[in-house]
Amino acid sequence: MLETLFSPKSVAVIGASSSPSKVGHVILSNLIKGGFQGPIVPVNPSVDEILGARCYSSIKEYGDQVELSVIVRPRQYAEEAVRDSLAAGCRTIILISSGFKEAGEEGFAIEEKITSLCKSRGVRLLGPNCLGVINTEGKINASFAGDMPYKGGISIISQSGAICAAMLDQAATHHLGLAKMVSMGNKADISEVDLLRFLARDKQTKVVAGYLEDIKSGDDFVKAAEEASTSKPVIILKAGTTAAGLKAAASHTGVLAGTDTAYGAAFMRSGVIRADTFQDLFDYASAFSLQPLPKGKKVLIITNAGGPGTLVADAVEKAGLEVAVLDRNISSALREKLPEVASTGNPIDVLGDADPERYAEAIRAAQNDDSVDSVIVILTPQAMTRPAETALAIAAQINGEKPVFASFMGGEGVMPGRAELSEAGLPDYDSPERAVAAIKAMYEYSAWKQRPPRVVTRFPVNRRRVERIITRNQRTNRLHLGEVKAKSILEAYGFRIPEGHLAATSDEAVEIAKRFGFPAAMKIVSPDIVHKSDLGGVRLKLATADAVRDAYDLMMIRIREKAPQARIEGVYVEEMIDPGLEVIIGMNRDPQFGPMLMFGLGGIFVEVMKDVTFHLAPITSEEAKQMLLSTRSYEIMEGKRGQHGVDLEAIANGLQRISQLTTDFSQIEELDINPFIVGEMGSEPVVADARMTLSKLI
Amino acid sequence: MLETLFSPKSVAVIGASSSPSKVGHVILSNLIKGGFQGPIVPVNPSVDEILGARCYSSIKEYGDQVELSVIVRPRQYAEEAVRDSLAAGCRTIILISSGFKEAGEEGFAIEEKITSLCKSRGVRLLGPNCLGVINTEGKINASFAGDMPYKGGISIISQSGAICAAMLDQAATHHLGLAKMVSMGNKADISEVDLLRFLARDKQTKVVAGYLEDIKSGDDFVKAAEEASTSKPVIILKAGTTAAGLKAAASHTGVLAGTDTAYGAAFMRSGVIRADTFQDLFDYASAFSLQPLPKGKKVLIITNAGGPGTLVADAVEKAGLEVAVLDRNISSALREKLPEVASTGNPIDVLGDADPERYAEAIRAAQNDDSVDSVIVILTPQAMTRPAETALAIAAQINGEKPVFASFMGGEGVMPGRAELSEAGLPDYDSPERAVAAIKAMYEYSAWKQRPPRVVTRFPVNRRRVERIITRNQRTNRLHLGEVKAKSILEAYGFRIPEGHLAATSDEAVEIAKRFGFPAAMKIVSPDIVHKSDLGGVRLKLATADAVRDAYDLMMIRIREKAPQARIEGVYVEEMIDPGLEVIIGMNRDPQFGPMLMFGLGGIFVEVMKDVTFHLAPITSEEAKQMLLSTRSYEIMEGKRGQHGVDLEAIANGLQRISQLTTDFSQIEELDINPFIVGEMGSEPVVADARMTLSKLI
Repeated sequence: MLETLFSPKSVAVIGASSSPSKVGHVILSNLIKGGFQGPIVPVNPSVDEILGARCYSSIKEYGDQVELSVIVRPRQYAEEAVRDSLAAGCRTIILISSGFKEAGEEGFAIEEKITSLCKSRGVRLLGPNCLGVINTEGKINASFAGDMPYKGGISIISQSGAICAAMLDQAATHHLGLAKMVSMGNKADISEVDLLRFLARDKQTKVVAGYLEDIKSGDDFVKAAEEASTSKPVIILKAGTTAAGLKAAASHTGVLAGTDTAYGAAFMRSGVIRADTFQDLFDYASAFSLQPLPKGKKVLIITNAGGPGTLVADAVEKAGLEVAVLDRNISSALREKLPEVASTGNPIDVLGDADPERYAEAIRAAQNDDSVDSVIVILTPQAMTRPAETALAIAAQINGEKPVFASFMGGEGVMPGRAELSEAGLPDYDSPERAVAAIKAMYEYSAWKQRPPRVVTRFPVNRRRVERIITRNQRTNRLHLGEVKAKSILEAYGFRIPEGHLAATSDEAVEIAKRFGFPAAMKIVSPDIVHKSDLGGVRLKLATADAVRDAYDLMMIRIREKAPQARIEGVYVEEMIDPGLEVIIGMNRDPQFGPMLMFGLGGIFVEVMKDVTFHLAPITSEEAKQMLLSTRSYEIMEGKRGQHGVDLEAIANGLQRISQLTTDFSQIEELDINPFIVGEMGSEPVVADARMTLSKLI
Repeated sequence: MLETLFSPKSVAVIGASSSPSKVGHVILSNLIKGGFQGPIVPVNPSVDEILGARCYSSIKEYGDQVELSVIVRPRQYAEEAVRDSLAAGCRTIILISSGFKEAGEEGFAIEEKITSLCKSRGVRLLGPNCLGVINTEGKINASFAGDMPYKGGISIISQSGAICAAMLDQAATHHLGLAKMVSMGNKADISEVDLLRFLARDKQTKVVAGYLEDIKSGDDFVKAAEEASTSKPVIILKAGTTAAGLKAAASHTGVLAGTDTAYGAAFMRSGVIRADTFQDLFDYASAFSLQPLPKGKKVLIITNAGGPGTLVADAVEKAGLEVAVLDRNISSALREKLPEVASTGNPIDVLGDADPERYAEAIRAAQNDDSVDSVIVILTPQAMTRPAETALAIAAQINGEKPVFASFMGGEGVMPGRAELSEAGLPDYDSPERAVAAIKAMYEYSAWKQRPPRVVTRFPVNRRRVERIITRNQRTNRLHLGEVKAKSILEAYGFRIPEGHLAATSDEAVEIAKRFGFPAAMKIVSPDIVHKSDLGGVRLKLATADAVRDAYDLMMIRIREKAPQARIEGVYVEEMIDPGLEVIIGMNRDPQFGPMLMFGLGGIFVEVMKDVTFHLAPITSEEAKQMLLSTRSYEIMEGKRGQHGVDLEAIANGLQRISQLTTDFSQIEELDINPFIVGEMGSEPVVADARMTLSKLI
């Protein structure tokens, strides 16, 4: 579908210019310099020739079909240029110019018009407000992002042209090869979803590195990203993770992105590797594109100085990785090849006067040792150090079976070595902690790839009953479902709710309580009262019929005093629930990503310690358990420290049922089970209180 | 005291060599190349001349006094070289050679001998196992760390020679100037404490950047570091913060460092700026040495692209800083000088085609605006970008009143600009988030400098009573003080403890309970029972005389069943304490830094959530309040969410009293008040349970 974006047979540049400072010149020049083999068609009615190429007054004049049209015309002429391109049979259009959606209403209207024009002809549109596209394989540089990069495995997709340009410039400096680069601009048509789908199958692309400020469709993104991640690493730097960042993003693209929590959940779900900074994006992209994935978390450190070795050992432990120790036999064999005072523990210290051969011996040992999953080689510039030769010696040992990273620390003194490392395809970081961060990202991705197949359990439920309740309430515009209705929906989805019934008189209340025995609980039911306890609307542990009667009458008096306007539907009389651990299960429908499940321990754990975890629905049994495991308070549920543990499976089961419910019914906007009371292993948890919010019927 | 280390009138190199690959050659060559003006005395009996300098067969042969002797002789000849140097009247000796403490017992013995030899003559010793010293002011490069650096404000002290070398190399590449560099090696004599004291007063030193694996004396370090931090920033990269790092450090220096928590507390106390990575160390050192401190936390972002601006806005907010907004008048004045579509909000977007003048205008506006405390200028390489001229335009605007940082993103494309920035003394980071981290460090240091004077309150206490209790127990080797004794010590330091007495019979128990009224509490007293509750040794809320009697008798039966060997001293009968919030106050004596106070909310907050804060004693009232504020659970104490708050002053007061107690009595090794029960404002908290551990009498 995007074939003619990346590999067109012919390219027109509408708005080609003979003035070297104009974008229309730079793009044409880049196309020619890049070495594109097909016909290049510059269009400009006022000149005959640019850069030695014949110039056409219009694309029509050219006669033959042009597959890709790059438009560099001011906004007011853009539509005309698009129509001309369509008439000339273009399959893809890149609209470079700015002044559209990002510039206000007028621009937005023109952008919309152009987009639907292209759509109606089945023609794809990149931009507007973008730098264009590069494909090193087809030698096409239809961009003004920079010179044609080296050929390699990284494909860049970015919502910011400047990030494209900076990445391109850095890649060139580090001799890092790229496959494709796409500046997405306003994403009027072609978006991250199309590109992820395409790049997932693209043979030249080994790694996708992206910069995003928003996404067009949450569902499609998650699907496309998961598919892409399954075949190759997808690294994304997401800007606008804070209020300040969102404001900044909105001011320059007119984009309103969703919450960062939702993006986090979506990335986790789809295996996307998250870069937190621009440096991370570049570091990870180079690591993933140059080195194989580690099989495990054991990192061997080879260094010519103790201090940096210690820093890396610290970084490895902090990252949740492990400092590897060489196998005893391999270690003693190595010991014989190194000076007596060298250390063959971990770090392996080849000493300050290490020659290239010592490094080579140490790396050989690491390659042969199954207890090593990845290697970091540190070189500091000491009096006897030969960086370039050492780099060559290291490179000669690489067999591609486990990832090897270099950290040549310093500046000019180690520069010759850096060049050799680049040449040999070894990632090199001047601060060694950055190598550890890259290994961590690779290890986590590798773990994600080995995840069990995602099988979402479907429980037998009474879907029709829920359908009825929801429809009835939506029709009467009662969108806040209180305890009674919410429980009734949950019961239909297999949750245990306490036995109970609505009472309209104190006699009825006593009658109901007698039915399931004492003690009983009583709660006021009113659409106008949210915080029942605050108004005296909750009474617990009522042990006798008289207690129930007294409580009923008192509750009515108090509520009428405190909330005279409230419509009272009655009093809900319920069996008392056995005490247990209180947890919270929630759902909030994200506008982008749909139902986002929330889990946390009740009370202060959620409210004060913010100890909650999130996951997008639908959720698997594994993922539900992972949500529990990711809370800091997991220990309490597990029941260490002499306490009994609670039934973790039962909580995970509850999460899955909520996942099913909120996937089945997109009308549920919000849902809270608080508290969900969980007991010991084998017991059935109970929904003690719950509420839901429905969407308005449109 | 260290004058002759940094500014000797004459320098000998014992072990000077004519072979260029030898350290003894490199040091001599560096001294000569560095431009040292005084006499240089190469000592080597087997050659007449090295590098054009006359060689002496011994330092004695030279005749005149030599102030600094640099020894590069193998371990077995080191003592002789030291004796010769002493005889020649040297005031300071640098022992470069390795093979001493770090190599095992034999080396350690020689090192000890040499150290005491120097001490007995009042001569200072640097090393052994070090790279030497550099002082750009005196043009002395008595090291093999690298070439003489540019002159500037950063002084490096490092326990790792390799870190010295890497910093030197990076500084040279970035045209960053240094004042002094000291490779401390094994720190047999001269340590971080001496150097901090000296550098605090050194006029050339604007910033101290250090790498440490351990410290020699906690108290001295805190004092010296605080004094130095008061006059200039001290940035330290501390290695060995994890178990893996400690192991690595131990293996290469034979050093066993203390816990990272204690180092963290010591750094906080003394205003030391902590670098977490090698990159941070360099980034912070360059920022502090080149730019003034910010007056506040408002950061203005100037950029030629929206994406990177958004990334920085995110980073600013995450760092706890604020994104500045230009004053309305200044903003509208700027608006007139920029193109219409440029944004003068924050970030200020000067657009992709920005020329140097636009950047200049934006910076001028920022300089004039009091609502801006610091500025980050981002440049991305776009088609029209002129990095070098833009760098010059930026540099021309700098007036030194507020810090300005550049982030020229990319590689070769922005390289010309980088050189101009270096030249102009503007810190430049290729990933813009690094500039934010540097500003954060500067802002925090600036806040530390403005801290109120440290006045430690001394409370009137009964010191003699505590003295007696401690002495008596130490003499009888009863080092674990249980509840009763610990409470009695705390009472002498002004803590409220519940009324109570030891009962030996049930009659006595009843008698005691009657004295202060019911309900009462009872707890078993035995040196052999730590977890009283687990054995049925605690009974609470005993409402009547009969209940007390029954509880006493039952407790005796149960304890004899469950712990027949335990020596029972009786039962402690106590008034019941009113319920309140349970907090924990603790103290653990760090071998390096002395009494370290601990605070946290009781129960799961400490045990599961690890929500605790630490501070070195003695503590001020401000610092005590800061300890409370730094817990994640502060909200609970403060009493938001409809709950009553507790008396925060009273907790802070308790922390200060424990600070006084544990500063007064170094015999107290550990102390725990758990729980300390705190009530509403104005109430007096109560020590519900406590224990202490004393040190062994030696």
